[in-house]
Amino acid sequence: MADGRFRIEHDLLGDHTVPHDAYYGIHTLRAVHNFPITGTALSAHPDLINGLAAVKQAAALANRDLGLLDAHKADAIVAACTEIRAGHLHDQFVVDVIQGGAGTSTNMNANEVIANRALEHLGHQRGDYRQLHPLDDVNAGQSTNDAYPTAVKVAFHIAARRLKEAMSTLRHAFETKAGEFSDVIKTGRTQLQDAVPMTLGQEFGAYAVMLGEDEQRLLESCSLLCEINLGGTAIGTRLNSHPRYAALAREHLGALTGLPLSTAPDLVEATQDAGAFVQFSGVLKRIAVKLSKTCNDLRLLSSGPRAGFGEINLPPVQAGSSIMPGKVNPVIPEVVNQIAFRVIGNDTTITLAAEAGQLQLNAFEPVIAHCLFESTAQLRAGCLTLTERCVNGITANRDHLRAVVHGTIGIITALTPRIGYAQASAAAQEALATHSSVADVVLAHKLLTRAELDRILRPETLTGTTEGDQVPHGAPIREPS
Amino acid sequence: MADGRFRIEHDLLGDHTVPHDAYYGIHTLRAVHNFPITGTALSAHPDLINGLAAVKQAAALANRDLGLLDAHKADAIVAACTEIRAGHLHDQFVVDVIQGGAGTSTNMNANEVIANRALEHLGHQRGDYRQLHPLDDVNAGQSTNDAYPTAVKVAFHIAARRLKEAMSTLRHAFETKAGEFSDVIKTGRTQLQDAVPMTLGQEFGAYAVMLGEDEQRLLESCSLLCEINLGGTAIGTRLNSHPRYAALAREHLGALTGLPLSTAPDLVEATQDAGAFVQFSGVLKRIAVKLSKTCNDLRLLSSGPRAGFGEINLPPVQAGSSIMPGKVNPVIPEVVNQIAFRVIGNDTTITLAAEAGQLQLNAFEPVIAHCLFESTAQLRAGCLTLTERCVNGITANRDHLRAVVHGTIGIITALTPRIGYAQASAAAQEALATHSSVADVVLAHKLLTRAELDRILRPETLTGTTEGDQVPHGAPIREPS
Amino acid sequence: MADGRFRIEHDLLGDHTVPHDAYYGIHTLRAVHNFPITGTALSAHPDLINGLAAVKQAAALANRDLGLLDAHKADAIVAACTEIRAGHLHDQFVVDVIQGGAGTSTNMNANEVIANRALEHLGHQRGDYRQLHPLDDVNAGQSTNDAYPTAVKVAFHIAARRLKEAMSTLRHAFETKAGEFSDVIKTGRTQLQDAVPMTLGQEFGAYAVMLGEDEQRLLESCSLLCEINLGGTAIGTRLNSHPRYAALAREHLGALTGLPLSTAPDLVEATQDAGAFVQFSGVLKRIAVKLSKTCNDLRLLSSGPRAGFGEINLPPVQAGSSIMPGKVNPVIPEVVNQIAFRVIGNDTTITLAAEAGQLQLNAFEPVIAHCLFESTAQLRAGCLTLTERCVNGITANRDHLRAVVHGTIGIITALTPRIGYAQASAAAQEALATHSSVADVVLAHKLLTRAELDRILRPETLTGTTEGDQVPHGAPIREPS
Amino acid sequence: MADGRFRIEHDLLGDHTVPHDAYYGIHTLRAVHNFPITGTALSAHPDLINGLAAVKQAAALANRDLGLLDAHKADAIVAACTEIRAGHLHDQFVVDVIQGGAGTSTNMNANEVIANRALEHLGHQRGDYRQLHPLDDVNAGQSTNDAYPTAVKVAFHIAARRLKEAMSTLRHAFETKAGEFSDVIKTGRTQLQDAVPMTLGQEFGAYAVMLGEDEQRLLESCSLLCEINLGGTAIGTRLNSHPRYAALAREHLGALTGLPLSTAPDLVEATQDAGAFVQFSGVLKRIAVKLSKTCNDLRLLSSGPRAGFGEINLPPVQAGSSIMPGKVNPVIPEVVNQIAFRVIGNDTTITLAAEAGQLQLNAFEPVIAHCLFESTAQLRAGCLTLTERCVNGITANRDHLRAVVHGTIGIITALTPRIGYAQASAAAQEALATHSSVADVVLAHKLLTRAELDRILRPETLTGTTEGDQVPHGAPIREPS
Repeated sequence: MADGRFRIEHDLLGDHTVPHDAYYGIHTLRAVHNFPITGTALSAHPDLINGLAAVKQAAALANRDLGLLDAHKADAIVAACTEIRAGHLHDQFVVDVIQGGAGTSTNMNANEVIANRALEHLGHQRGDYRQLHPLDDVNAGQSTNDAYPTAVKVAFHIAARRLKEAMSTLRHAFETKAGEFSDVIKTGRTQLQDAVPMTLGQEFGAYAVMLGEDEQRLLESCSLLCEINLGGTAIGTRLNSHPRYAALAREHLGALTGLPLSTAPDLVEATQDAGAFVQFSGVLKRIAVKLSKTCNDLRLLSSGPRAGFGEINLPPVQAGSSIMPGKVNPVIPEVVNQIAFRVIGNDTTITLAAEAGQLQLNAFEPVIAHCLFESTAQLRAGCLTLTERCVNGITANRDHLRAVVHGTIGIITALTPRIGYAQASAAAQEALATHSSVADVVLAHKLLTRAELDRILRPETLTGTTEGDQVPHGAPIREPS
Repeated sequence: MADGRFRIEHDLLGDHTVPHDAYYGIHTLRAVHNFPITGTALSAHPDLINGLAAVKQAAALANRDLGLLDAHKADAIVAACTEIRAGHLHDQFVVDVIQGGAGTSTNMNANEVIANRALEHLGHQRGDYRQLHPLDDVNAGQSTNDAYPTAVKVAFHIAARRLKEAMSTLRHAFETKAGEFSDVIKTGRTQLQDAVPMTLGQEFGAYAVMLGEDEQRLLESCSLLCEINLGGTAIGTRLNSHPRYAALAREHLGALTGLPLSTAPDLVEATQDAGAFVQFSGVLKRIAVKLSKTCNDLRLLSSGPRAGFGEINLPPVQAGSSIMPGKVNPVIPEVVNQIAFRVIGNDTTITLAAEAGQLQLNAFEPVIAHCLFESTAQLRAGCLTLTERCVNGITANRDHLRAVVHGTIGIITALTPRIGYAQASAAAQEALATHSSVADVVLAHKLLTRAELDRILRPETLTGTTEGDQVPHGAPIREPS
Repeated sequence: MADGRFRIEHDLLGDHTVPHDAYYGIHTLRAVHNFPITGTALSAHPDLINGLAAVKQAAALANRDLGLLDAHKADAIVAACTEIRAGHLHDQFVVDVIQGGAGTSTNMNANEVIANRALEHLGHQRGDYRQLHPLDDVNAGQSTNDAYPTAVKVAFHIAARRLKEAMSTLRHAFETKAGEFSDVIKTGRTQLQDAVPMTLGQEFGAYAVMLGEDEQRLLESCSLLCEINLGGTAIGTRLNSHPRYAALAREHLGALTGLPLSTAPDLVEATQDAGAFVQFSGVLKRIAVKLSKTCNDLRLLSSGPRAGFGEINLPPVQAGSSIMPGKVNPVIPEVVNQIAFRVIGNDTTITLAAEAGQLQLNAFEPVIAHCLFESTAQLRAGCLTLTERCVNGITANRDHLRAVVHGTIGIITALTPRIGYAQASAAAQEALATHSSVADVVLAHKLLTRAELDRILRPETLTGTTEGDQVPHGAPIREPS
Repeated sequence: MADGRFRIEHDLLGDHTVPHDAYYGIHTLRAVHNFPITGTALSAHPDLINGLAAVKQAAALANRDLGLLDAHKADAIVAACTEIRAGHLHDQFVVDVIQGGAGTSTNMNANEVIANRALEHLGHQRGDYRQLHPLDDVNAGQSTNDAYPTAVKVAFHIAARRLKEAMSTLRHAFETKAGEFSDVIKTGRTQLQDAVPMTLGQEFGAYAVMLGEDEQRLLESCSLLCEINLGGTAIGTRLNSHPRYAALAREHLGALTGLPLSTAPDLVEATQDAGAFVQFSGVLKRIAVKLSKTCNDLRLLSSGPRAGFGEINLPPVQAGSSIMPGKVNPVIPEVVNQIAFRVIGNDTTITLAAEAGQLQLNAFEPVIAHCLFESTAQLRAGCLTLTERCVNGITANRDHLRAVVHGTIGIITALTPRIGYAQASAAAQEALATHSSVADVVLAHKLLTRAELDRILRPETLTGTTEGDQVPHGAPIREPS
């Protein structure tokens, strides 16, 4: 019985009222009541909603091709899915992002929204499931256990591609800066101790290369996501699935998404295996680790302005302190560090969830999916804000950098092939103890002539930026007596 | 210059328009632009907003007492803070939960909202900071570095107390079931192998005891949160803070919150140390580990209905499958498992953020705070949904449990003190190999009489639920030849 | 000055005695004193020792080719390295596996052992570094910062290959069992609840497939390890390295190890980047997660013997209890679970160490290397003991499995395409409530004929093991009124 | 049958030869064969061996008191345990530290070694178990499931106390330095940016306070370890344990170890709960996080010598580079960082192992114990080497520190209460832009007089080291127009 504001739906627990204007149905409502966990609904992950709609659309097309679904029903389902994939009805995906049931409630939510919208297209009332049924028609030939992970994989693909673009944007920013700073000589550091000279361009170039490698790894992990288990149904034995369904549905889904999908060769394994998610998370963690390292470096290099390294200046983006006027802080790298910590924490969550899968299915895919969507989106946001609000505006303190490099002890290294490790070590210690320069000590001890020194200490030679006449290894060297 | 819809505010980067009706100001706006990370605003953590308002109110009262703040300004600030603590204006806390700047933007957001609301109370326009200034008046005597962590600690206290109540609710549910099942004998298991008998009441009682211990640990960790650094200002040296400010502000804050606060003995240390947060997270992780273990057990014990342990029945709360009709899954324990994985992942994030703190301040407190608020809230939601939608409705399959216990091999253990380990081991192996019962084998070999057997195998004796005549250790035992 | 038992060596801190018969020297000794951390010496990782010797040998050959090292010195160094690679002198690698200094002490240890052994080959005394110097001659053209990570990568390659072999052994064991159990029908389970039928062969086959995929991922991650930074010297600027050194040394090293090595295109980046290690660890973690899941399953399936699933029997390998005679526990899967937890913990350690790298070098590579060697070795040990002492001896309780499958509710799923989800759900609930079989309920309600039922419930159809006539989706279905 | 080199022992798998001179027996040997995992034997954790011997001794005394064990047998067992606790026979504990079976093999190893040594004391042959049996006599009244965790807890206590002493040693070193540096003024930093002045003594004092707090937390977590489950036997139901056994055995164990032990009120819960271990690990992780933060700071503050912060000098302990002569690196803090990463990784392992416990027992206690022993020992080693080889020898670059502090912008903060945030911010920006000092800008704009400035900028006032006349908050401040 229902009045104008509600309709009645039925499941194995009995009847329940559903708001009249809701596209979701009773299964969705049960889940909403069961999982009041995070306050964040599935609609927070639009890629997932779109992925689900694409899977449902592909399944309907395959079932129509096989004669298992009437054409008019199939058309209505396709119309509903198309609308969802265009961004409509996302507010009807109301189940919590963290939920029990291996994604069943997410799948049910999709089935119900699509069915009710399709019913409208067919000229029926929402809830009139005799005309078109969420399970018998929309979910036909599918199980949550194949439809849901397939949708998740499709969605990750799209999210990952968007992340990749943001990484490229950041990489280009670093590359631009590397060019801009290619002639800025500075002191390289290992273990925070002055080492040997390099250019600031080399330093920024390394950040770009690091990102480029990670983009590559991200693309590789995406290819693992292309292997789907659609057609395996409940546990991978294909029960209730037409022999040609898996191939047909995959082809339709590939056409809809533009992805080079393949069906897993062993569907029983594919249904229970969360390996591709673990690997994808591992790559996101790798990206996070490198981004965090890069931001740590930016904060170090810009430390100061007067009591720190003071090598570079990050553009100021907000007042830094409520008590210290004029203080400007590296807030953009700091927020990226925190994103990285979050992504690394999410990897822990995913690892535990993957390990906890039992027998024919991993029941914990919802939290895996939620963490991966969150990590991907936040990494992307981090790359973009780091590009626009930090890297693009970085400037170098060229004079300071050049002055420091000539005072450091590390240039003794370039003389070692000529004077030997032991003698060089003694000279370095003397320079430090007497607050003098390495060059002065070397000349005072007549270890080299001024001309030899000048040749060896040319910036281009020191930084390896030209392939000049490298200092050859000299004659046998005597230990200091 | 401003029209009716905007006002102009100024900071070290220059002018910026602020929506006329906004209570926040330019510093907040800068942060909103800088940190488009999660899409979740600070208002998602109402305890934090309330904690900030309490700190600001206490500071204003202390400054008034010290003659550093005019009474009419203090009154206006107090009025604004009181409103916020009553739940008003929370929608004005718009900065992202993950942000750079060690909480400065959160603090600025609070300063601005309070100042503008206080200005209204004083009959001035929002933005007319000559009358009452967000920094010089609201933030007076404070730094983000003491005000923010103090607010966070106050907020955790309230959140933890709410979690503790939910844990008690769940504990009571387990205690009720323990009473209900106190006479249900069953097979205890170690390493998933049949061990010795126990009652189902003992099993559920253990879950209650576990929770009770965790409640105790949670309360202990809360006491660490009572040590605050308010008055330490920027780095703990109390710069710009009146000598009596720390004590006065603490007393006002204690009175407002009802918490037994103390000022840290070394404020320099207290300003940089995230130890209390790490410890608090460690306790939340401990709770998560135990809850997850408990849910794993509930899922195991209810496995079946026909091909599993089948010992207990969880109440059905939704249809379990889109393809398998009639299937009901343990979705409530499953969602609690996932909460636990999330809390454990958050602990990893917090650990990284705490370790990354440098020198006089931990810049990464925002992500620490966000994770802790999330973990506390989700654990609480998990306890409540587990209580209401699962534990309260659990029933036992008493007959099945009793039948199984009499067939298990484990009861041989009770005979060991009489017949020795070696002989008992041989009897157990024979029973297994011949598909017979331990009792039959023991009688067949005349190792014990029927009367002896019956006495030893009384359920009460086996489960230790009465302190009956325990079997004494017998005479020296011979190895089987 | 030295007596017969000691010789004197010198470094920047002054003189130190070295045991006369030691091949290591003063730098090694300093490190031994500085790092009394784990009690485990570098010799615990023989692949690393061999890797170091290979790098040193390749470097000496390259330097000889370039005329930077006298042939007789090069020959002596090569002879020493060859001996080490054959397993000699490993006991001279005495520095702790966890050490500060980014691997410098490990590199120094190698330089000294090789130099002193080479000195013997040349007819000189150990310690007579005027004849051949650990740094000027053995370390010539190298820095720790290129030589050490190159050695580590070569070593991981060998260790990973050995792990891969052990995984293949385990995979073959699962494949054999999959064949043996291919006709054993059983109840598949999702979320620990009875789902639809499958064969035990399919279940074991999935474990094999999972391993096979992980072997593939392991090989892929090995290819990342083939990119080395030898020739980059201190920070990747190639300072003190001959222009042709990098290529020559790489070619020699490739020839010695049989690996398809390449020189990183950006050596500055390659010197500071720990990404390949993070990725390698991620793959080991993935393997651990899957192995742990598999062992969890084996423990579940063998739970009992009488109060559990009782589907399979693991071979007994030791008495299970000191108090419960005859109890046998799944100790082999249990130890593999623990290895997995350790590998996952090591991944956390590696993540932190990688993130903590600063500027031009990651100072924490020693703990990364130690964890990866440990993880690789323990996973290998786990695969082998799991194969030999568990999987090879597993047997199935065929009759029990078959009996259970016919009583489960899950087979209703196969009827859904004919009778619809709602009707099937009602039938399933009735069967459960009345303790009857699904078939009986379906027949009683005349939903299908006995002939139809028998056809649909054929084991081969249910388990998808033949591509028989799948049940087509039927006519429109009515909601139960 | 046995020859002189071997004896034959028997278990449920059949006969096996045992080396004649071995004190361990067949159960130990089976475990050695089953678990060839790490190559590290139990003897690596002497505290554990001693803890096991103490438990066995206490159990024998309790059984003797109860008349369940003949006095001559009890005396022999006590004699054997006393020898082991004095450090003898540890080489007979040969099972791998990572093992399946929930510690059964460790318990069996102890039972066998003690029995065979006791047999010798009684004048019998090793292996003549008719006279005194490892299980019936040594293990009497116990299960692995109560004896093993009790031994582990006793052992952790001793290990934790030793760690606490090392932490105190390190704390004293920091306290000494804090005193030595109490008059060294320097620039405090927040977010790596120059903040306000402090003393180096305050900075080092904070490290000491941090350690002191952690010592307190460690002691608190030890008190959780005092609750034991001895007497609970297999699953906590006390089966086969005399009603007075638990109390008697606890009293004897308390007397032997000097620990204030208590018996857990719910032994079923205590037998399955790993909470105390998780908490203990959490505290070790907290210590690791703080130690790592401290070492990060030491590395930052000593960065340079010429291109870094250059505030302090760590004592050189070894040559830093094989290629850069004279370079000295912060290798001691670096190794402590790595220990911290390891401890944090171990916490992950322990978390997974604790979560994986099922039903009445946690099968994974061996890896938990191993990780905790490792973490405790390595943290101790880290504290000691950090004290002796680093902190004790730290010196300050006083002149440099003083010079920098007067040039920093941060001192503007002290003027804010007089000139207002907005005006102070403008002055700070001008000083930065014109490369002039804050004092000059303030005087040029006549914001304060020289006398006022001098009074406010007194070092004692700035650093809060005297409770002098703090600057009172001034009159209302105008926004800059």
